Amino acid sequence: MTDAEVFSAVETLARNARAASYKLSQLTTEQKNEILKAMAAELRARTAEIVAANALDLAAGEAKGLAKPMLERLKLDAAKVEAIAHGIDQVIALPDPVGQVMEKYTRPNGMHLQQVRVPIGTIGIIYESRPNVTSDAAVLCFKTGNATILRGGSEAIHSNRAIADALQAGGENAGLPAHAIQLIPFTDRSSVSALCQMDKWLDLIIPRGGKGLIETVVSQARMPVIKHYDGICHLFVDKAADLDMAVKLTVNSKVQKTGVCNALETLLVHSAVAQSHLPTIAEELVEKGVELRGCERTRQIIDAVPATEEDWGTEYLDLILSVKIVDSLEEAIEHINTHGSHHTETIVTGDDAAATAFLSGCDSACVFHNVSTRLADGEEFGFGAEIGISTDKLHARGPMGLRELTSYQYRVRGNGQRKL
Amino acid sequence: MTDAEVFSAVETLARNARAASYKLSQLTTEQKNEILKAMAAELRARTAEIVAANALDLAAGEAKGLAKPMLERLKLDAAKVEAIAHGIDQVIALPDPVGQVMEKYTRPNGMHLQQVRVPIGTIGIIYESRPNVTSDAAVLCFKTGNATILRGGSEAIHSNRAIADALQAGGENAGLPAHAIQLIPFTDRSSVSALCQMDKWLDLIIPRGGKGLIETVVSQARMPVIKHYDGICHLFVDKAADLDMAVKLTVNSKVQKTGVCNALETLLVHSAVAQSHLPTIAEELVEKGVELRGCERTRQIIDAVPATEEDWGTEYLDLILSVKIVDSLEEAIEHINTHGSHHTETIVTGDDAAATAFLSGCDSACVFHNVSTRLADGEEFGFGAEIGISTDKLHARGPMGLRELTSYQYRVRGNGQRKL
Repeated sequence: MTDAEVFSAVETLARNARAASYKLSQLTTEQKNEILKAMAAELRARTAEIVAANALDLAAGEAKGLAKPMLERLKLDAAKVEAIAHGIDQVIALPDPVGQVMEKYTRPNGMHLQQVRVPIGTIGIIYESRPNVTSDAAVLCFKTGNATILRGGSEAIHSNRAIADALQAGGENAGLPAHAIQLIPFTDRSSVSALCQMDKWLDLIIPRGGKGLIETVVSQARMPVIKHYDGICHLFVDKAADLDMAVKLTVNSKVQKTGVCNALETLLVHSAVAQSHLPTIAEELVEKGVELRGCERTRQIIDAVPATEEDWGTEYLDLILSVKIVDSLEEAIEHINTHGSHHTETIVTGDDAAATAFLSGCDSACVFHNVSTRLADGEEFGFGAEIGISTDKLHARGPMGLRELTSYQYRVRGNGQRKL
Repeated sequence: MTDAEVFSAVETLARNARAASYKLSQLTTEQKNEILKAMAAELRARTAEIVAANALDLAAGEAKGLAKPMLERLKLDAAKVEAIAHGIDQVIALPDPVGQVMEKYTRPNGMHLQQVRVPIGTIGIIYESRPNVTSDAAVLCFKTGNATILRGGSEAIHSNRAIADALQAGGENAGLPAHAIQLIPFTDRSSVSALCQMDKWLDLIIPRGGKGLIETVVSQARMPVIKHYDGICHLFVDKAADLDMAVKLTVNSKVQKTGVCNALETLLVHSAVAQSHLPTIAEELVEKGVELRGCERTRQIIDAVPATEEDWGTEYLDLILSVKIVDSLEEAIEHINTHGSHHTETIVTGDDAAATAFLSGCDSACVFHNVSTRLADGEEFGFGAEIGISTDKLHARGPMGLRELTSYQYRVRGNGQRKL
């Protein structure tokens, strides 16, 4: 397809999404849940077709020489399709934020205001290889009354098409408006640029993927983008830290799972307890297979590879941890605000005043006192499901659940109020 | 200056703003109010200097042949400087949203979450000719703990510099951190593009000005932008509308002030009451000097210039009103969602069910029942002050007060909670 053909095709999808969004916004929670049930049922009914479509992607991926972990992420079997359908069951059980009255009051002139949650409208989701995102993202957006346009990775095109078709077709049996869930059905790269130009029809783009993808979208998009950048998370062992807690939280934050954005990447230790605490912490980490990269003062106390300036800004997503000794709480906060990614930071301390200063001083979405960084997560926060963890400060910050997929409007009722 | 020099100068300002923001976020409300008092005092003390600086701008403007209304907007005298200072007095009296706990709860594992309002951080304001914006915008951002970089119109450069200098210098006497309020001190056009690239240091840009300025910022900015586009506001006279109320609200919405975004631009009339209501409404409007542009059916009932397709999407900001007859509430909503700018819409009706359907069907920031469109305003809504009326759906929609100049963070306290 030529770029102009891609643009025109994407524009049609976007225009149709806007029309669908006006119907979606009028559905009741009960209607939406019935539609979600029908979507889950259709996904389950089409398991064989979805797995067959996935086999085409896997064959093409192998022929192209995709790396093993990539093929692993791409692969669907009956159990994985069931897991996707079960994800829909869980979203049905979540409360619907649409229609919630956030605030209501009456002004002196008698007009009565309500600030009411409404759907955002139309959302573009641009993602990479995992085909389960097709359903997970579309379903969260649908539950909140939003129409979606999905642009998945080219290597998963057959799987994504099969899943999106099942959702839309299954939903339509239960009253889902046409064009509520649309997948861009071709793999031309210029469809990403085209989507970024659709600000008349698309209210928001959420890129879910690596830094390169997010950068591309940020530099091209005319509409708001909610970004889920790296998690360069820190744990600070304060001078008033309990050794046992410092060890347990550091180990859990670093090794419970490494390839995730809320895993620990840098350990900061107050110089007053470096001699007493650092050796035990290091010993436990090394035992779990963690490679330590330390500042000079760290290396006077424990064995560690020398850390370079680059280490302080690196999200390893691996069994590697950078370690730095600081002389004060303030130095810890400054290091975090300078080198971090504003995601999640933890202080381990028995001193409440130090904790309060740390929490209000760190410019990050999630700031914790005596809690593992791994608990920065929509499920752990009680949101039920999340579409990601936003490193932005506007609209949604931190774990982004159903509520963050809504906007609001002011509904004002009066009896003839005029401007005087 | 070369573009590279501009970029480098703007980058220094932006980096300094970020550093200042970390100090601003730690100020108490009392400290901020003391600083605001000192700013207002310094503005008043420097009245003569500010008026003298403004005289330079006026002279340059006249020499360049600026139009009269433009010169009028540019002009400052002692009374206008006093009005700017009084605006600061009013912001002192407003409640500070920073530190407010939006939500708090404890999870089953015992960790306690608080979602707390915090400053956004650093905000770029790009605006056009009115020098009072320099103070109005900076002061609202400061009250909410944000550092600002101001980029005003070149024709007001001397006035803007004098005002920004007074605010920063006055504030510093009372403890304002350096670089909290910075004006770009040169007029090179490439400073706008440079600001748009500073996403590492700037969290948000708010363009305040015409469509051209907003378009430029939207297409270049890498960080979030909150847009205040046109107000193509509608009033729908439903079939159950009281004639007297329809007349009064239409007249007030259209003629109370015309050059503002919440003024009425299109009147929609239900065909069932077109014969009975439209002539009286038209008569009153024409008496106030309003030019009517009607659809064909309108012109069978009243005198009106033929409306073109373009009229339905035009913000006149003048004594002109487009008029269209529709056959149903649904048609009115569809017209509004298709041709409007998602700003403010009003239904006049005695039928509550129709009003409810209209309010939830219109995809606009402000939806009113029996209220003049002119009341879509931060002051009227009780916000005390507004930085504008957002036509965006993300983060801030409709009148944007102090609360909308904040972000939030999750502060979580525990006693060793880990991921299981």
